[in-house]
Amino acid sequence: MTEHHTDAVALIERTIAALRPLDAEAAAAAAAAMDGKVKPLRSLGDLESLAVRVAGIQGTASPTVASPAVVVCAADHGIARDGVSAYPQEVTGLMLQGFAAGTAAVGVLTAQAGARLVVADLGVVEPPQIAPGQNEVLDRRVRPGTASSLTGEAMTRAEAEQAVAHGIGLAHLLVDDGADLVGLGEMGIGNTTTASALTAALLERDPARVTGPGTGVSGDALAAKVAAVDAILRRHEDARGTWDVLARMGGLEVAALAGVILGCAERRVPVLLDGFITTAAALVAWRLAPVSVDAMIAATLSPEPGHAVQLEALGLEPVLRLSMRLGEGSGASLAIPVVRSAVAVLAEMGSFADLGLAEASPHA
Amino acid sequence: MTEHHTDAVALIERTIAALRPLDAEAAAAAAAAMDGKVKPLRSLGDLESLAVRVAGIQGTASPTVASPAVVVCAADHGIARDGVSAYPQEVTGLMLQGFAAGTAAVGVLTAQAGARLVVADLGVVEPPQIAPGQNEVLDRRVRPGTASSLTGEAMTRAEAEQAVAHGIGLAHLLVDDGADLVGLGEMGIGNTTTASALTAALLERDPARVTGPGTGVSGDALAAKVAAVDAILRRHEDARGTWDVLARMGGLEVAALAGVILGCAERRVPVLLDGFITTAAALVAWRLAPVSVDAMIAATLSPEPGHAVQLEALGLEPVLRLSMRLGEGSGASLAIPVVRSAVAVLAEMGSFADLGLAEASPHA
Repeated sequence: MTEHHTDAVALIERTIAALRPLDAEAAAAAAAAMDGKVKPLRSLGDLESLAVRVAGIQGTASPTVASPAVVVCAADHGIARDGVSAYPQEVTGLMLQGFAAGTAAVGVLTAQAGARLVVADLGVVEPPQIAPGQNEVLDRRVRPGTASSLTGEAMTRAEAEQAVAHGIGLAHLLVDDGADLVGLGEMGIGNTTTASALTAALLERDPARVTGPGTGVSGDALAAKVAAVDAILRRHEDARGTWDVLARMGGLEVAALAGVILGCAERRVPVLLDGFITTAAALVAWRLAPVSVDAMIAATLSPEPGHAVQLEALGLEPVLRLSMRLGEGSGASLAIPVVRSAVAVLAEMGSFADLGLAEASPHA
Repeated sequence: MTEHHTDAVALIERTIAALRPLDAEAAAAAAAAMDGKVKPLRSLGDLESLAVRVAGIQGTASPTVASPAVVVCAADHGIARDGVSAYPQEVTGLMLQGFAAGTAAVGVLTAQAGARLVVADLGVVEPPQIAPGQNEVLDRRVRPGTASSLTGEAMTRAEAEQAVAHGIGLAHLLVDDGADLVGLGEMGIGNTTTASALTAALLERDPARVTGPGTGVSGDALAAKVAAVDAILRRHEDARGTWDVLARMGGLEVAALAGVILGCAERRVPVLLDGFITTAAALVAWRLAPVSVDAMIAATLSPEPGHAVQLEALGLEPVLRLSMRLGEGSGASLAIPVVRSAVAVLAEMGSFADLGLAEASPHA
């Protein structure tokens, strides 16, 4: 075990040990304040529960969403060379160039949301060429893509730990820079297959139930994808525990995103999940540290069939339902204004007390 | 017929005659541009169809949401004195003061959305006292509240026409000031009862199917509300045509909001519906001019049971589902960033053509 690796393990252990559940007192105070606003009780629906959840996560009855950020983790997947994706592996690097240029969907949507966009390379096969003046792509490379989980182990346990530690470090970087809400995004050709394998393994579900079209496979290609996930599970049926499952069939960006969740949860910053792949990372974080689910907010519901299965396991209801299945952090970005608005209502809306009225209840 | 009233009728007729359906050519061009963006086909889901719809409404393949506005129309309802609401009628004027002060939910949410908030008094019983320096409440008073539709006609046909004409004028005012997306809001104690009566009458539905808790009645009070709607329908069972229904059992703010829809549709500006009451206004506009539905976008789905019935009749799918039932324009305000983001993706996201790639289709 190298010193570097010892550091990674120590960081993960320290982070998990520091996790705390929702602050029930802060949440209750926020809920009471929301009930006192000049409106019929609970008439703002999910907006009220969102504000209360953010209060509980941040541990204050006066939560803020002043400085949201979206972190996109990218990596390649050995499985992509086995014909599971509609796109060739080189697209991962090309898309990173689009993230750097600001022309990708997540660039447009974070700009709309007033959110900072941070992109990290956890192990794209060909590191992207970033032109001067473009957005930086942080180098957090663990290895140039995973090996195929169909024919071997995607990565070593030490590499999985290094990727998770990088994610924790990214969370700390964002939070130290002031982020008070962090959205997740990902890029990696083949990663819906990886996410399906992880979901099937961690939740013990039939691969066919949690494998879908991803970026657009259908018919025979979809059947082949289901067969590939099934073969991955059979090959690694002796995997034991979350770390073993993550290393054998996971992805570097998925591992890092699990780390981002743990790091944000430790710092009491809410994490907005995006689609199917980031929610696979959420399953990993949840299995490593069940209480980390308390920091999660589900942004969207993807039509990818495994996403509803994941969210149900985590006990999360999505903020938006817009049939988005792009990933990249597009759904998380779109949900940011909704969460910010919920918190703004709590902070700024007038209360019955302001009007000198003792109570919110309507007349008889 | 007074000259004033002749003007109102002429304005309404001119507006309706000028309505045009969705611009199919602009919508098709926007859809083709969206298909050319660097992403799997249709992977942005409802965001793509929203951008295409705005293109069709605005009549351009390059639509904009640069200057959104929310217009809140307020008025009192005679029916409120018959015990159908959880709140006394005086609350309408008090809420208008909150709108003027910026402390109401819609004030917080329009500020969050970067939208202009315009409030108009169509006939509150007690005109609100607005302090200097507060947001203006536009005086579009037709009469100091309607009469009770349980015991007579809510208003005359001429008054209904005047309110609709005021709404058209408000739309023109907003659009002339640059608004390129208009959200609807309302305030009026008792107006869920009015909206239920209008919905039941216009769609020929059982009152029990389209009458719900509103601001919070339940149990015996809800049964009494259903009975009131039923009694309104029986009293006016000889009503013939949309204008007759609107005058006998409508509300001044509902009539004005129907006018806002017609005026926006004429100017090719998309209209974001809010909850159950604004959608009752949408039913009125649709019955007066069926093509006006082409300018509508449903922002939210209210838990008020009649709302889904209304949206189904109009053939609209809501952008958001957040269990909000406050009204005021709160749902319309929250949907503005989503619509703006959809249009931004169309305008700003990179295309395969930008990359020198001929087509969007993935490799074999």
